[in-house]
Amino acid sequence: MIDYYTIIEELKNIKTIENVEEIKKLSQDYYYFSPILIPILQNKQADLVVIPTNEEEVLKIAQICIKYKIPLTIRGAGTGNYGQCIPLNGGIVLDMTEMKKIHWIKSGVACVDAGIKISLLERETKKQGWELRMIPSTYKIATLGGFIGGGSGGIGSINYGQLRDRGNLNKVRVVTLEKEPRIIELFGDETQQVNHAYGTNGIITQLEIPLAPAYNWVDVIVTFDNFISALKFGQALADSDGITKKLISIHAQPIANYFIALKSYLPNGENCALLSMAEISLYPLQELVKEYQGKITYQQDLSKNSNINLIEFTWNHTTFHARNIDSNITYLQTFFFTIDKVEKMYNYFGDEVMIHLEFLRVGGKAIPAGLQLVKFTTEKRLNEIIKYHEENGMFIANPHTYILEDGGRKNIDIEQLNFKKKVDPYGLMNQGKMKAWKNN
Amino acid sequence: MIDYYTIIEELKNIKTIENVEEIKKLSQDYYYFSPILIPILQNKQADLVVIPTNEEEVLKIAQICIKYKIPLTIRGAGTGNYGQCIPLNGGIVLDMTEMKKIHWIKSGVACVDAGIKISLLERETKKQGWELRMIPSTYKIATLGGFIGGGSGGIGSINYGQLRDRGNLNKVRVVTLEKEPRIIELFGDETQQVNHAYGTNGIITQLEIPLAPAYNWVDVIVTFDNFISALKFGQALADSDGITKKLISIHAQPIANYFIALKSYLPNGENCALLSMAEISLYPLQELVKEYQGKITYQQDLSKNSNINLIEFTWNHTTFHARNIDSNITYLQTFFFTIDKVEKMYNYFGDEVMIHLEFLRVGGKAIPAGLQLVKFTTEKRLNEIIKYHEENGMFIANPHTYILEDGGRKNIDIEQLNFKKKVDPYGLMNQGKMKAWKNN
Repeated sequence: MIDYYTIIEELKNIKTIENVEEIKKLSQDYYYFSPILIPILQNKQADLVVIPTNEEEVLKIAQICIKYKIPLTIRGAGTGNYGQCIPLNGGIVLDMTEMKKIHWIKSGVACVDAGIKISLLERETKKQGWELRMIPSTYKIATLGGFIGGGSGGIGSINYGQLRDRGNLNKVRVVTLEKEPRIIELFGDETQQVNHAYGTNGIITQLEIPLAPAYNWVDVIVTFDNFISALKFGQALADSDGITKKLISIHAQPIANYFIALKSYLPNGENCALLSMAEISLYPLQELVKEYQGKITYQQDLSKNSNINLIEFTWNHTTFHARNIDSNITYLQTFFFTIDKVEKMYNYFGDEVMIHLEFLRVGGKAIPAGLQLVKFTTEKRLNEIIKYHEENGMFIANPHTYILEDGGRKNIDIEQLNFKKKVDPYGLMNQGKMKAWKNN
Repeated sequence: MIDYYTIIEELKNIKTIENVEEIKKLSQDYYYFSPILIPILQNKQADLVVIPTNEEEVLKIAQICIKYKIPLTIRGAGTGNYGQCIPLNGGIVLDMTEMKKIHWIKSGVACVDAGIKISLLERETKKQGWELRMIPSTYKIATLGGFIGGGSGGIGSINYGQLRDRGNLNKVRVVTLEKEPRIIELFGDETQQVNHAYGTNGIITQLEIPLAPAYNWVDVIVTFDNFISALKFGQALADSDGITKKLISIHAQPIANYFIALKSYLPNGENCALLSMAEISLYPLQELVKEYQGKITYQQDLSKNSNINLIEFTWNHTTFHARNIDSNITYLQTFFFTIDKVEKMYNYFGDEVMIHLEFLRVGGKAIPAGLQLVKFTTEKRLNEIIKYHEENGMFIANPHTYILEDGGRKNIDIEQLNFKKKVDPYGLMNQGKMKAWKNN
């Protein structure tokens, strides 16, 4: 048994949280989007939350974890959806949100502490004419380190691909959980060892990321009488090299019914596209909309004040809004690869699997990725739905598992496993998440 | 017979050139890259060159052309390669280079007179953090109006596609050659009526174009032991969404032997890639180069002073340098669509057709386009080479014709023809270039 009073004493001036209710809150994420994960994860919680403010404190915490062999789980803002930051075996949750220093922003690159909120970072980069290459729909509270550790892409991925794509992450600093914890720097491809590894193999303390030039973005809603037009419009906009955008989110009827705040623009839950467009591309957008028989029902310059931010209705915020109306709804994450496959699934499943697409670039090509809303009945049926997609040539990154390799990665990532062997030899970090570790 | 002394008198204060040698010079372009075009075009020349400085003067010139039924051919800097601005039936050459006013640059859009030099325009846009979405290799002297009228794409097309792609041209003002000449404004898709129409259907006087955010660009040369590695590297870089670039120019051995000024970096005419890279993407570029067993032999930040500008060795500047060494060399313009097709042609033709590629985006996908160097023997053989490419599924935009539709467009463009019927009812503009006009 670990005596946490001793631990707290040894941590000295480092901030901790001992209140059980608060610890509970800081041990959870949005795993409850999955009815499969609820019974597995709902009672998991840490013994102690520790909140470092700088790298020295992180190093000190790592030393204590080694000394007492304490399980350690890293947490950003807890906006993940598969229990990425939920401790399975108690121990310490390392809350990174006070590690929020911006070290520098220059010439289109930012160097920051891992716990910085994405929205706060962007507020600063924009002063120099830059913004993040991609952000999650949770960007207002999500941390950059959490996005790298547990995310994969987001708004902006239609231009820059995914976080894991070469060139999207320059450098990370990592505190190890070796016998003598130390700081390691990883550059370029080397960062793949910790990128989207759920914090299983090192504590990312600092990140250096390339930025994107900031445009004046305009939110636009387009409606379509039929879904196939919306689908084809999405692909055409994605492939229009002369039209500058950073979000193409397509929703089949009746998903829009869940967007209460957008009711005036989508009164009948219309098939719709939620877009973020460069102001300079609004005119050609209108021409494209006309070509696909769409109708623009909403347009809002984001540099002006607005109560609505369309980003917060896209990616997994769509699921969030749907579940606010019908908590029986869950979701999938699917690479369809082609719009023909989307059409096939649309016709096959009907309302049981409501099509929600986000277009993004994969290996230079814009493809539709699905975050379909599923009317949940049983686990068996959910697995049948997944299987049917896979048998028809689609790739599902299963959001109903907390295991790293059973989600998007599928295969054991030897590079990440080897890195864990090196920097977490005692297997203290985010225990139970990396399947390869148990098998080796 | 038209009496040009009367014309000059009627033109009053508008600048004209009457010197025969100067008229000769201003009636030519780089058509001599084609041995087929030389005998056809070498003796063509205007009777008079007129140089307007503003739209009112253009309108005045149009009125006089109508009054006397004078053939009118518009000229930018004369950097075209198929006689786009060569008058086939004498008449007036309208030299647009004194129409060079920048009306405004704001929020990523520029409004300028058609005769502005692209390099001068970019010098101004860069002060606001913007640059042109694409430029020709002749950008130092080429005019924007000439690029739109006679060009198709260039450096930057790897990001924004071609000039004709929706969203790359906001607006044009056009002076007509109707009975009563007037000024027309065309917006968005409407600009297709005059885009790449060789000035056969209206005088473009003013353009409004969307810009691209300016990066700090770095010239890079990479060499490869074998061409197929260079080819695959080019496609991989084009498809790397996280790596920011604006030029991927690939050259098979021994093309680099023609680049005398680059001799120190390409001593043996190596297979090579000439690149323009964002400074923030240099590190991931190095990683990609390593993956394809390339070697970086040159790297130069363009914000520093440099005698070398790699852009001026790419696109049709490659042909220019090759012809400086061996005037027997000509070229092709080819959409290969896939790198497999490039490999097939590379193996089939060997040194007779030396592979020079420029990667660009077409409909959302990055594809290799060829400006292959051909060792010219006979017209018959040249046509055989073209035919072989076409029979194997490639598209050739024949650069050995001055006819609009026999070049890149292939089909009669009804929209452009109808616009010509409307704005040039007497058929005075760039006579003999639009085949559809003769047939109708």
